Amino acid sequence: MEFSQLVHQRQSVKSYDSGKTITDAELKELFEDVILSPSSFNLQHWTFIAVRGPETKKKLKEAAWGQQQIEDSPVTLLVCGKLDAHEDAPEIYAEAPPAIREKMLPMIQKFYADQTQLVRDEAIRNASLAAMTLMYSAKARGWDTCPMIGFDPDAVAKILKITPNYIPVMMLVVGYQKDAPRPRSHRKPVSEVVRLESLQGAGLTAE
Amino acid sequence: MEFSQLVHQRQSVKSYDSGKTITDAELKELFEDVILSPSSFNLQHWTFIAVRGPETKKKLKEAAWGQQQIEDSPVTLLVCGKLDAHEDAPEIYAEAPPAIREKMLPMIQKFYADQTQLVRDEAIRNASLAAMTLMYSAKARGWDTCPMIGFDPDAVAKILKITPNYIPVMMLVVGYQKDAPRPRSHRKPVSEVVRLESLQGAGLTAE
Repeated sequence: MEFSQLVHQRQSVKSYDSGKTITDAELKELFEDVILSPSSFNLQHWTFIAVRGPETKKKLKEAAWGQQQIEDSPVTLLVCGKLDAHEDAPEIYAEAPPAIREKMLPMIQKFYADQTQLVRDEAIRNASLAAMTLMYSAKARGWDTCPMIGFDPDAVAKILKITPNYIPVMMLVVGYQKDAPRPRSHRKPVSEVVRLESLQGAGLTAE
Repeated sequence: MEFSQLVHQRQSVKSYDSGKTITDAELKELFEDVILSPSSFNLQHWTFIAVRGPETKKKLKEAAWGQQQIEDSPVTLLVCGKLDAHEDAPEIYAEAPPAIREKMLPMIQKFYADQTQLVRDEAIRNASLAAMTLMYSAKARGWDTCPMIGFDPDAVAKILKITPNYIPVMMLVVGYQKDAPRPRSHRKPVSEVVRLESLQGAGLTAE
């Protein structure tokens, strides 16, 4: 399938067939795509918690405005962003050529050191890139997804035993769609969201 | 091409053929994919500034650690996040069924009102989802991309006349690769970045 078709087929889906499952082997194949997402300095600021246990899903649902797809889908994922991802740099660059490693490690430390807002921004930014890869890779495997931001992050962090060096970035369910797709929701046109040369520039048209 | 292949082929590319161009019509097709990305409450917190003018590109390069791909690639994009995207809700939901509109508009206002950190998080999160779609859609069209975070956001905001209700989320170049691809950089394995049931749970393996 061409990528444009995949983009057109992907929609946020809220109704799932609760009788179907996704195995560890299937999940692993999905994540083999996800980990190839880009990230700043290749720091891979993402970690995913995959929840299939009914008790934990029930608690997550309660912490997420009662959204039923959390219980009905076979897997609920919490996409986490790592606030101290830059501390993994020595490990990530361990096998890089020495010239690269010697340039990158001090650059990374300088970029992130004592930058409280930046490390949060980066955790969200890079984990979101991976989340988008996940949604397309899932769709390409015949699964649907629903990204969610409507949840209590502190409650979710407690349920999933998240340590303070991580933040919840997004919840996502993955599964088999039950009902027919809904009509696609409204999108702002390209001519509105793409501006030429500056924010005040002309909108992009094909004429 | 299957999506997994596309994922494996996409890499961040820094060397571009400076003799090639990308037309408005080609860019518009790319963005017709991008605007179908998901976003919280469908608020589409993204706006893109497409820069092709050599003078502006030179200024952007100076504000971005001298990164040469900004001058060599045919298009440099600034992905912006809209801090007041929730104020577009009445327009976005104008044609939604009344029951949906009457439920969503107050929910959206309540979710974002006076939430300074949240509106920033959301601008970054949702604009990043769109940026990832952009990188895959570009690759599917035979173009390469390089996402960049190494730039002075205030300087870039000034060059591109960004108003205070937007933040720069990421710079991206799009173009035709010149040199052969580099070896893919190291990735943390799935067994490390996917945890089962809680952050302290077992890593995902396929056994």
